[in-house]
Amino acid sequence: MTITGATRLFGILGDPVAVVRSPAWWNALFARAGRDAVFLPFQVSAADLPRAWAGLTAIGNLDGLVLTMPHKQAVLPLLDALGPAARLVGAANTVRRLPDGSWEGDMFDGEGFVAGLRAQGIAPEGRRVRQVGCGGAGRAIAFALARAGVAALALEDAAPGRAAALAAEVVAAFPGVAMAGVPDLLVNATPTGLAPGDGMVFDASLLAPRVAVADVIPNPEVTPLVAAARAAGCTVATGRDMFEGQARLAAAYFGIAA
Amino acid sequence: MTITGATRLFGILGDPVAVVRSPAWWNALFARAGRDAVFLPFQVSAADLPRAWAGLTAIGNLDGLVLTMPHKQAVLPLLDALGPAARLVGAANTVRRLPDGSWEGDMFDGEGFVAGLRAQGIAPEGRRVRQVGCGGAGRAIAFALARAGVAALALEDAAPGRAAALAAEVVAAFPGVAMAGVPDLLVNATPTGLAPGDGMVFDASLLAPRVAVADVIPNPEVTPLVAAARAAGCTVATGRDMFEGQARLAAAYFGIAA
Repeated sequence: MTITGATRLFGILGDPVAVVRSPAWWNALFARAGRDAVFLPFQVSAADLPRAWAGLTAIGNLDGLVLTMPHKQAVLPLLDALGPAARLVGAANTVRRLPDGSWEGDMFDGEGFVAGLRAQGIAPEGRRVRQVGCGGAGRAIAFALARAGVAALALEDAAPGRAAALAAEVVAAFPGVAMAGVPDLLVNATPTGLAPGDGMVFDASLLAPRVAVADVIPNPEVTPLVAAARAAGCTVATGRDMFEGQARLAAAYFGIAA
Repeated sequence: MTITGATRLFGILGDPVAVVRSPAWWNALFARAGRDAVFLPFQVSAADLPRAWAGLTAIGNLDGLVLTMPHKQAVLPLLDALGPAARLVGAANTVRRLPDGSWEGDMFDGEGFVAGLRAQGIAPEGRRVRQVGCGGAGRAIAFALARAGVAALALEDAAPGRAAALAAEVVAAFPGVAMAGVPDLLVNATPTGLAPGDGMVFDASLLAPRVAVADVIPNPEVTPLVAAARAAGCTVATGRDMFEGQARLAAAYFGIAA
């Protein structure tokens, strides 16, 4: 990579940001695509987002940003325009500068998750899904699964009332989806599996070859759930598959074929 | 260069910025020094400086900035502390984040110019200097030459009154320096030589082997003045020597041996 005065800037905004792995993926993409561009980590605290946003968007050669914790919802009021998934989910993970200088954002976490399923041969159409976790990632995934045509979506969350509230929102947007059924796709949209010693959010008795399993944790890619699901003969999509799906959609949003 | 989430950020703020060559120098330095850091171009207009400054300083992994046109004077009121050369010259070209989170700046254009002279074997002590150009670069150079112990400094500028005003400031700070004398060091601190077809600010009759010549133009490095001076047997320091001197001082200011 050679950075010159003419190099275009992209980056990921988060806190913490030292742990993110996306710069390697993006800079490899720019090299393959022959783009004079670089993807950077920007460490910005929740309190500093409005100030950092105003300053970053004043940099003329900054063309796009990816947002991670804790900024995906907080960025919404700072944007000039929202794509359809960002409007539904109430959060954005990718923002770009438009030719008129305004900033538009959209949410590719859910669509990226669905792309990750498809990459592993797990077609979502007609599936009966059981999803644990209705926080930021879970919201994005639930809307994207409903949009992709799952037959049923049973939502669970440790926080009282959260799953029912999200279910009502999803049914309002996609009336065809039911909210129960014997599952054949299990989704972990919680942080369980991130920390050493974590267990898994599903009982092992649910794992069988006819059941597909998807996890949102990219690192470690092989969580206890992923390991147990593979051992039980399930088809599995990992958090890395979700990351790849999301990052490809974000790259296309920036006008770069990935 | 491998950029990770933990990579530290440095950069140059200017407008235009696409023409700057410093990212290559800095990124080669980071590689040699084994620093997980990257140096970037930040295109920021004069009007956007306060907004960009507020935002850039909100980025926790941004450790330092170099400033070029049109920001060297405008950045002063944004800084929490100034080094001695920045105070004298009324401008800063290098700013760094201190451990307490405040920002301090100093001006290395003049000291870098003197370092470039020394790198070419041109000791400034006792020299009688004739300098054309009393703008931003010229101010920094005049103070640094006086500080380095030149005997005399004859200043010229196309703008009426500008050279006399700077001379008064330099004499007030360094009373030992005279403001006339037959020159043995000729300094071009104007943009003449930057554009194709430019001539030179000194009459060719002044060029002789006992006279040293210094130019501030880094690109093209061989200006008509540099070419004529070399042909006449003068010792020459180019704008590239000044850039190297300035960049080494800025790197030391960031805590990196260059």
